[in-house]
Amino acid sequence: MSSKFGIILVKPQLGENIGACARAMKNFGFSKLHIVEPKINFPNHKAKATSVGAYDIINKAKVFNNIQDAIEPFNLVISLSARRRDINKKNISLKEFQKIIKRRNLNLGLMFGPEASGLSNKDLSFSNYILQIPTSSKFKSLNLSHSVTLVCYEIFKGLNKKQISKKSFGLKISSKSKISSIVSHLINLLEKKDLFIPNEKKHSMILNINNLIHRLEPNDKELRILASIISSLSKK
Amino acid sequence: MSSKFGIILVKPQLGENIGACARAMKNFGFSKLHIVEPKINFPNHKAKATSVGAYDIINKAKVFNNIQDAIEPFNLVISLSARRRDINKKNISLKEFQKIIKRRNLNLGLMFGPEASGLSNKDLSFSNYILQIPTSSKFKSLNLSHSVTLVCYEIFKGLNKKQISKKSFGLKISSKSKISSIVSHLINLLEKKDLFIPNEKKHSMILNINNLIHRLEPNDKELRILASIISSLSKK
Repeated sequence: MSSKFGIILVKPQLGENIGACARAMKNFGFSKLHIVEPKINFPNHKAKATSVGAYDIINKAKVFNNIQDAIEPFNLVISLSARRRDINKKNISLKEFQKIIKRRNLNLGLMFGPEASGLSNKDLSFSNYILQIPTSSKFKSLNLSHSVTLVCYEIFKGLNKKQISKKSFGLKISSKSKISSIVSHLINLLEKKDLFIPNEKKHSMILNINNLIHRLEPNDKELRILASIISSLSKK
Repeated sequence: MSSKFGIILVKPQLGENIGACARAMKNFGFSKLHIVEPKINFPNHKAKATSVGAYDIINKAKVFNNIQDAIEPFNLVISLSARRRDINKKNISLKEFQKIIKRRNLNLGLMFGPEASGLSNKDLSFSNYILQIPTSSKFKSLNLSHSVTLVCYEIFKGLNKKQISKKSFGLKISSKSKISSIVSHLINLLEKKDLFIPNEKKHSMILNINNLIHRLEPNDKELRILASIISSLSKK
């Protein structure tokens, strides 16, 4: 999967951000990092420090003098922009983006601009489409590594839909029979302690106890703890 | 919207991360930040620097000595964890998460652990559910501010679905009539330049020219530029 996608950082200003981008890329299974005219010496120690477990991406990152060379291996380039631009380039929605990433024979470069200013109109002219990450209209300026994180995440989610939906898993809840036997035991004890006198109370009391304990969704260990709490309390 | 959700950072270690979290919160319209036992003096200059336009969130952030106090205003707490834990707490999927955030009368606290270790089992015990952000199985450890970014983004997307899908907008493409008149003009000029000799070539040449120019999706300004390029080239 990862070889079909590359991240292109144009004129990044902070080593920390490059490192954080590399880390995010690795979190979502990407490895191809192209850097155009970095405003710092690269690689540097800050980039390595913030990359944490993604040294390999920093080490294999390629540095270019211009966008033309950096985008050469790709057959489609999508630029990220925080604002609408006065340039005749199609702005795609996340939905369209999700369709594009599933194309066959795709070599997609995702291009991100410098921290302070974003991509220039000239930079944008090299791309096929522009993608704007949806944000609050009041504060659109995303941190560079946050943009990279969100784009990598969207691609990862789009390409791994089945696996992700499988990831939901429930509790290891004790069987209803075990829970019921605790409830019975408790009710017996309470009966001996005369809780259900007068007898008319009994029905609603039992209903409430049942409700409470079944709602707990305990596992076996917790059920044993519950049993021992009940017996401790009922000791004379 | 924002007042229904809060971000709880448990024992964060780096001011830069707190600042980056605040910035991400503001990007997606959130403002309530609770910090439990920060491992640094807070607020500090690094947190302010990386928050960029989100000073206000840093300034209003509340610091607590323990989780109990920090979660008090919420009626539901979801903890973020990068790995499955040996604790009897329901792990919810993103789909279930999307359902929960749409509940009425919700005051949801989203709890994130320290950078190095994540939340402890004791920390997790205060939450209702655990959410694991889907990542590559090879490198699951997300940067703290990246986790906060992704969670805020998911909530923002979930609650603004209609607006976001509207955000797609096409090009201001010139009308087909304008494009066709340029094509006709070009073909006339080329005819005069004897490009279509022998005559059998003509049909397929015109087809190709049509294909190319209609595929361009030019706007009116670009079409005028194209027209002037054509007339310049055709000057004797």
